Amino acid sequence: MPEPVGAGREDAVGSPAEPGPVRIAVDLLGGDRAPAVVVDGALRALAADPALGLLLVGPPEVADLIVGALPAVDRTRATVRPVREVVAMADHPTRATRADTTVGAAVRAVVAGAADAVVSAGSTGATVTAAVLGFGRWPGVRRPALAATLPALAGPVVLLDVGGSLEARPTTLLQHAVLGAAYASVAHDVRQPRIGLLSVGTETGKGDRTRRAVDAALVAGSLAVDARYVGLVEGFEATAGARADVVVTDGFTGNVLLKGIEGAYALAGEPPQRGAAPRAAALLGVGGTVVVCHGGAEGADVASGIALAALLCRRSAVRRVRALFPDPIRDIPTDTEVSA
Amino acid sequence: MPEPVGAGREDAVGSPAEPGPVRIAVDLLGGDRAPAVVVDGALRALAADPALGLLLVGPPEVADLIVGALPAVDRTRATVRPVREVVAMADHPTRATRADTTVGAAVRAVVAGAADAVVSAGSTGATVTAAVLGFGRWPGVRRPALAATLPALAGPVVLLDVGGSLEARPTTLLQHAVLGAAYASVAHDVRQPRIGLLSVGTETGKGDRTRRAVDAALVAGSLAVDARYVGLVEGFEATAGARADVVVTDGFTGNVLLKGIEGAYALAGEPPQRGAAPRAAALLGVGGTVVVCHGGAEGADVASGIALAALLCRRSAVRRVRALFPDPIRDIPTDTEVSA
Repeated sequence: MPEPVGAGREDAVGSPAEPGPVRIAVDLLGGDRAPAVVVDGALRALAADPALGLLLVGPPEVADLIVGALPAVDRTRATVRPVREVVAMADHPTRATRADTTVGAAVRAVVAGAADAVVSAGSTGATVTAAVLGFGRWPGVRRPALAATLPALAGPVVLLDVGGSLEARPTTLLQHAVLGAAYASVAHDVRQPRIGLLSVGTETGKGDRTRRAVDAALVAGSLAVDARYVGLVEGFEATAGARADVVVTDGFTGNVLLKGIEGAYALAGEPPQRGAAPRAAALLGVGGTVVVCHGGAEGADVASGIALAALLCRRSAVRRVRALFPDPIRDIPTDTEVSA
Repeated sequence: MPEPVGAGREDAVGSPAEPGPVRIAVDLLGGDRAPAVVVDGALRALAADPALGLLLVGPPEVADLIVGALPAVDRTRATVRPVREVVAMADHPTRATRADTTVGAAVRAVVAGAADAVVSAGSTGATVTAAVLGFGRWPGVRRPALAATLPALAGPVVLLDVGGSLEARPTTLLQHAVLGAAYASVAHDVRQPRIGLLSVGTETGKGDRTRRAVDAALVAGSLAVDARYVGLVEGFEATAGARADVVVTDGFTGNVLLKGIEGAYALAGEPPQRGAAPRAAALLGVGGTVVVCHGGAEGADVASGIALAALLCRRSAVRRVRALFPDPIRDIPTDTEVSA
């Protein structure tokens, strides 16, 4: 398994309060409204962060729209990797492993040391597939998780998984709890994160068989990181953050919940005081820094995805989260898993 | 299996534009803040609907708070069934079948013809259990579904299941699609409802194995009611309503989504133009009218739950939805179900 690429460089970068140079590979063709919103997002990100460099992965004429819009002095901050193919939403994700697709080429660029992280607003399945095959999964990680951070009332809440994998298995949810705790600590400086397991009520026993098994395992102390399990939480916890800093669920439920919250904010007519639903999520459990943007991302969303990737690189997040991830965590016996 | 109780009476009542007398059995002890919010809700409901009668199921001294607050001329509109036990959230739901619990007694009262419908803000599992055992399930219904109606941007959207059952099986989801279509037609006058299957993307193939199997079956024409399947929809469809009038999902995901939307509205600081997330849902697939209120319901929520129950009785909703529900719908082969 490859080490997180660019880890040494990240270490040289210093603390997040002291931003250093970092280069992000951006998939120019990923997303429902690519390349326009990606061009917009890349320019916004470059303008906001003087130490940021981009590796533009896509058709040269699209990259030229970005480079051409930069002041002459800044043009060296953007380099180009010419690729013409994209993995469309309807394509099979394994297409993403090809070097002639934007997301496949972006992952390869990071593996080769030409960039520190990948950002794509394309098919989530394709990006996860490319990342797993290009960077490798950490030992013991069954399924990588996509972690979104919501600006909840009481502070940031990490919601995971929001779509890295879709089937809910107890062992996968236990891993999500550990990954989420480590991520909250590294990315959001939360000490002893409070971990909640998403269910349909807070009383012990509420939920399907999977949640009941995971709840019992977490109560029994399976966390193995410096975090505190607070028990079952409900859907509103993701926006309240009153009881938990990390809300753990399967990727299907988390994806639906995140998009439902997004829809509610859209209907409420204005973004809440503390900011809108996040449209970028970090992939945890693979040996490289990957940020997945919402397929319907706007330019500002792509820019915040790039900024998140830069933050994670500067904090050496992949290395630090991995260091907090224990040896393969104990499986829950198979007979407690969901069966048909 | 008993016929829907009070069906003949409902027929005599006439159209919903012409409200007629109806009597709702109210569980005085159900809910996190019972009995106070139930007393408040009952009084609000009686004040709003002159043709409404209530059967108050609970301790007489609580019922007296309601009766005593009514003008003398209205006191015959509230009758009392003295019951002292409640099924608490932490109790096993089967306790709800006992006649000395409020929800068990409320269901028995409807079976005996003393009321037309049951409203409870108590444990959902307890209410569903009492309803299934007291009223019976319709032939072919595997799991009754709780249907919530959200005031989406483009009109009402029926979301189901929001917690009637928790495990996602393809056949159950197909049944939810049929029940939801019939309910949208009867309760919301939607002609040829557009049915969407909740998933993590709109392209064919997005989702877990269960959604892929159900999507294929719905595309193949398994709906069997006058409705139109529009394909996969995402979480924001529940508040947008742009593509679907009915959003179909399992009870775990639907419950989480509904509470997430509720939390987002709470964080957004003000209810959206079209109204807040519903805090009452109708139980579909059993031989009686049952409305389940959110455990955290306020008085206004309980009142709207009672009003919903009255509307459903006046529209003979149970009889009409059941008439639209076909003979046991064809099972999807077991090998497409989720396995551990």
